[in-house]
Amino acid sequence: MPALSVRHLLGIKYLNEQDIQLIFETADQFKEVINRSIKKVPSLRDITIANIFFENSTRTKLSFELAEKRLSADVLNFSASQSSVKKGETLIDTVNNILSMKVDMVVMRHPNPGAGIFLSKHVNASIINAGDGAHEHPTQALLDSYSIRERLGDVAGKKVIIVGDILHSRVALSNIFALKLQGAKVKVCGPKTLIPKHIESLGVEVEPNLRKALAWCDVANMLRVQNERMEMSYFPTTREYTQQYGINKEILESLDKEIVIMHPGPINRGVEITSDVADSSQSIILHQVENGVAIRMAVIYLLASQLN
Amino acid sequence: MPALSVRHLLGIKYLNEQDIQLIFETADQFKEVINRSIKKVPSLRDITIANIFFENSTRTKLSFELAEKRLSADVLNFSASQSSVKKGETLIDTVNNILSMKVDMVVMRHPNPGAGIFLSKHVNASIINAGDGAHEHPTQALLDSYSIRERLGDVAGKKVIIVGDILHSRVALSNIFALKLQGAKVKVCGPKTLIPKHIESLGVEVEPNLRKALAWCDVANMLRVQNERMEMSYFPTTREYTQQYGINKEILESLDKEIVIMHPGPINRGVEITSDVADSSQSIILHQVENGVAIRMAVIYLLASQLN
Amino acid sequence: MPALSVRHLLGIKYLNEQDIQLIFETADQFKEVINRSIKKVPSLRDITIANIFFENSTRTKLSFELAEKRLSADVLNFSASQSSVKKGETLIDTVNNILSMKVDMVVMRHPNPGAGIFLSKHVNASIINAGDGAHEHPTQALLDSYSIRERLGDVAGKKVIIVGDILHSRVALSNIFALKLQGAKVKVCGPKTLIPKHIESLGVEVEPNLRKALAWCDVANMLRVQNERMEMSYFPTTREYTQQYGINKEILESLDKEIVIMHPGPINRGVEITSDVADSSQSIILHQVENGVAIRMAVIYLLASQLN
Repeated sequence: MPALSVRHLLGIKYLNEQDIQLIFETADQFKEVINRSIKKVPSLRDITIANIFFENSTRTKLSFELAEKRLSADVLNFSASQSSVKKGETLIDTVNNILSMKVDMVVMRHPNPGAGIFLSKHVNASIINAGDGAHEHPTQALLDSYSIRERLGDVAGKKVIIVGDILHSRVALSNIFALKLQGAKVKVCGPKTLIPKHIESLGVEVEPNLRKALAWCDVANMLRVQNERMEMSYFPTTREYTQQYGINKEILESLDKEIVIMHPGPINRGVEITSDVADSSQSIILHQVENGVAIRMAVIYLLASQLN
Repeated sequence: MPALSVRHLLGIKYLNEQDIQLIFETADQFKEVINRSIKKVPSLRDITIANIFFENSTRTKLSFELAEKRLSADVLNFSASQSSVKKGETLIDTVNNILSMKVDMVVMRHPNPGAGIFLSKHVNASIINAGDGAHEHPTQALLDSYSIRERLGDVAGKKVIIVGDILHSRVALSNIFALKLQGAKVKVCGPKTLIPKHIESLGVEVEPNLRKALAWCDVANMLRVQNERMEMSYFPTTREYTQQYGINKEILESLDKEIVIMHPGPINRGVEITSDVADSSQSIILHQVENGVAIRMAVIYLLASQLN
Repeated sequence: MPALSVRHLLGIKYLNEQDIQLIFETADQFKEVINRSIKKVPSLRDITIANIFFENSTRTKLSFELAEKRLSADVLNFSASQSSVKKGETLIDTVNNILSMKVDMVVMRHPNPGAGIFLSKHVNASIINAGDGAHEHPTQALLDSYSIRERLGDVAGKKVIIVGDILHSRVALSNIFALKLQGAKVKVCGPKTLIPKHIESLGVEVEPNLRKALAWCDVANMLRVQNERMEMSYFPTTREYTQQYGINKEILESLDKEIVIMHPGPINRGVEITSDVADSSQSIILHQVENGVAIRMAVIYLLASQLN
């Protein structure tokens, strides 16, 4: 049976192309099963998975939880706000305590970049990084690529523009790694203050002009605007951001082709994209959400089959 | 197989009498199964239900959750306080995102009247309204009528008085619809400032005097006093409310018959009713709670059998 | 089949020695099953258990939840922060409401000493006390003794020192009852202001000097320092506490024997014990956590087999 080259999913950075293909093919199978309305796959009956979220994340947490339940795993939810973390316990102690209860896998979101990597070196369980600060969010990047493959047949050779706050975005970074690994061409577009200085070293070009970026690309992945960043004056106002980096129907129709619109959610309607764009047939935003469950089932299933 | 006339349970207003009887007969069967200590009915194994609560509600949420688990459904809990709603996402986006994960049914509580109706027109899933502002709370009204039927044999022809804040109460409104539909006689009793102006148009009489109301009725449904309303000076003080609209043992014993006492909970002991009344054999308050699970199982089961 | 002498687990105070042995032998069996990676025991399929936590407790709650799920029970989680309790409902009403939904067992943590005892007299369900104020925390004491028995072969005759805030600690009190019942010798060590006045009446000696205490004992159970107590000036500062009552590697190595180090968690590393002590082979802290699940499975299983 084919297996992943890794014991953990800490970042796309640590995967090879075969890993990504294996995850996609496994997700294909789960998606087919789900679509035939066989919602539960009794494959992980003896596995217990702890979802440990040190940051709020309804959407990602629900998606993981659903993936786990569809695999018939036992699910423990642990969120930092109710947790011993407040009492000053260290991360390793917290996780080791949970693992001592015979938990097999940990899905963790944490505000510190590298928290999952650190953990994987100190505890004895399979770790899935569900977002670590501005570092990586690998399952998001996998579901994004999977959704491009689903819509366009392939990721290799496709031209993808990522628009917005590239500097602070784990979604952007993981997407860049995943897309490059699969042979896509990637450009980024956004306010100069929100583009990392050495982004070209990742094989990515900067295109400051949105219209030019859209004219070039097959796919536009529109990152969410974080109002917190606005307040920190990385750029003037939401309105100015929208004028320069937002997409509306008129802009889309001025292009001589149909590009694919993506967004990791939650959407600020009227900011990154207008409602008519979000709800148009060019948008695959809800497909991304749907594929998220299948991709997470695939990742959990593949990592679990390496546990003994 | 008999089926409901509706695809959603948005309010009693949208049901006909046959719907109510079908729900009651289905609940009878679930209750019998539960009482024979067969707690789980393996009927909805492939159904996923999301409980989306934009307002706190331990009691109703627990009751729905238990009903869902007893039907062997998969359950996702989503509460607004942890949610993307804070990030400015729209209601439709939030729900569509959840539905994209292949959720079949949504149980929703929302502070806005009509939120469920609005949603049912824009998303593709079966919606159960678990309370929408001051509008409706249909499962509460169903369990209330079901509990009257259980105690008195029938609802038709029974005289029911609803006491308290009728104006702001979704429980009162749904009860009025349900009771009238089944042929009960309904009066309301409470401070003038808390009675809706055109209540008679619903076929309901106002009886300002509690003693007269009790002398007339077979059943008294005592609504919970919301201290928030007090503070907004709809009426003077809790003590004055209790003097005029509270029931104690002495009042009950002064009647020449045994009326049935109901309360949707949580009780303010000593305000709407005294402890001896709440705990007396005339009170069916705990039966209401018990019946709530059976009624919700019936509603979910009947709506689920219409999916696809 | 052997049975417990009690219908509830309200405190160690109410158990006899046979009860403790029965719980330990049942836990042995569950632990063996878990270690053979058969994580789920399908014994309580028709049982519903409500975890009602009026105080935060991630660790204990997770442990109970996992024990319940491994027994295939249905689990309802109810935490006070979301609850009707805020609306002024009484404890009995809250619990009766939950029980009316046909819940069979209640696991409760409550800030008031005796809350579980009070409840057990007024509601019709099996109650497990998961901590009631400064009174008892029986499952913690059982897992502590079980972990001593596992490491040292037996509890009878062993010398155990409990170090820290004895006065406010339900862990200390339940441990004293459990250890004495099994024939262990118990001393306590801590700041004079944090030792109860009549502790000797429980058959326990006070040893104010930590080095002497350690020289005497086989096992040191290091209680967690509550910073709240510090602020209330029961003793000067954390640093001074550590100097007098903290254990480091050097102290351990100065002893002419290997004592066993325990801690109920979460550890303040560097306060009660240093990291090298916590992570040393003399520490059985993670075994305590692991055994917690098996002990709780045993308690739930034994109490459930007495229902009806």
